[in-house]
Amino acid sequence: MNAPTDLAARLRVLEDIEAIRRLKARYFLACDRKDVAGMRDCFLPGEVHIDYGVVGTFDRREQLIEVFERLACHAHVVEMHHGANPVIDVTDDDHAHGSWALHYQQIDTRGRKLTQLGGTYEDEYRKEDGAWRISRTRFVAGSTLVLDLARLETQEAK
Amino acid sequence: MNAPTDLAARLRVLEDIEAIRRLKARYFLACDRKDVAGMRDCFLPGEVHIDYGVVGTFDRREQLIEVFERLACHAHVVEMHHGANPVIDVTDDDHAHGSWALHYQQIDTRGRKLTQLGGTYEDEYRKEDGAWRISRTRFVAGSTLVLDLARLETQEAK
Amino acid sequence: MNAPTDLAARLRVLEDIEAIRRLKARYFLACDRKDVAGMRDCFLPGEVHIDYGVVGTFDRREQLIEVFERLACHAHVVEMHHGANPVIDVTDDDHAHGSWALHYQQIDTRGRKLTQLGGTYEDEYRKEDGAWRISRTRFVAGSTLVLDLARLETQEAK
Repeated sequence: MNAPTDLAARLRVLEDIEAIRRLKARYFLACDRKDVAGMRDCFLPGEVHIDYGVVGTFDRREQLIEVFERLACHAHVVEMHHGANPVIDVTDDDHAHGSWALHYQQIDTRGRKLTQLGGTYEDEYRKEDGAWRISRTRFVAGSTLVLDLARLETQEAK
Repeated sequence: MNAPTDLAARLRVLEDIEAIRRLKARYFLACDRKDVAGMRDCFLPGEVHIDYGVVGTFDRREQLIEVFERLACHAHVVEMHHGANPVIDVTDDDHAHGSWALHYQQIDTRGRKLTQLGGTYEDEYRKEDGAWRISRTRFVAGSTLVLDLARLETQEAK
Repeated sequence: MNAPTDLAARLRVLEDIEAIRRLKARYFLACDRKDVAGMRDCFLPGEVHIDYGVVGTFDRREQLIEVFERLACHAHVVEMHHGANPVIDVTDDDHAHGSWALHYQQIDTRGRKLTQLGGTYEDEYRKEDGAWRISRTRFVAGSTLVLDLARLETQEAK
């Protein structure tokens, strides 16, 4: 139990969980900052499975980036992607899976509309060349709210 | 400091914190998914102390489950339980306590009402048969919002 | 790789990340609870750099406390500070930096106004006398919403 080899294996699991939690946090921060390169780097370079429901289904990270640039990368689309409730399982040295809850909010400052989504991710992660990346992800919306800001605001959202 | 026994004890504390964070995440995910068995499994099977304020006070997990099924397990009650700001203290090998903030949102798609709570949990955890579970929990609401969606929506929430 | 000294160094990094995550959680909980002493203790006692945008820029924690007491420590100011998406880098034994997303909400129960901010922190942390504290922090708001609750509520927020 306390042999250095066993300790190293247990430590490795904690390091992997930490690395994966950080990977997903980097992904969400990249979404909010419209950081295209940062987002791309969170996914495996080869074949992936990204199922974002009405947003689309993609098997290359470049396809997601294309949609991200088209739908979100505009000054009037102001977004918040906050991850919560991570449950991460490391399967072996280079495979893991995890669940996350998402609190998403979009302010469309042009259309003066507020969209909020609640939902959950089911992810798979793979470690290649020393780095954990998302290999498969599925987002399922649990709740959707679309509010008319023009009727609500005391000052214009930004 | 670097003797294998000391390292094992420090590693154990980190593993315990990780396990407790994951336990609470599983609890919140179970709430959102209306996963009754998943929720039950987050609490000790024997005597517990659950103080959820206006929702009720319970000393058996079955009592909480009963209220959960009656109040929340309906298609028109769409909920989000997102945990934040965990501060977890491991007291000894099988006791710990922790604080969490909660962002709770409920859409009542029938009554077209949105309820939001902010608040904090004060929890105690116990490890039995190798698994951490909640032995005591108290939720105190810090803020409450109830909004009339009929006046706000550009499309119906779901 | 598995020598006790190397294991101790890797373990230390995980402990430091854990301590910093907990520090920021304590800070956010202190904000919500209007716990002045708890907030003060999250910052270094000497020179710090706190850039909170329109709230102000401070080089002593006492200056932040003064503004906090003046702006937030009133019964009608009901706040939620929820941290998300932490990305923490430990640079050496007593220096680290990190990014966080914030979901901030304020209910002004007197003015019946709801203010929501989304944004990110860029922090630096220093370890002195065995405790990690914030030495530098910059908050940049990404989104701002101010809603008129008088037009929205089915019951008064609290």
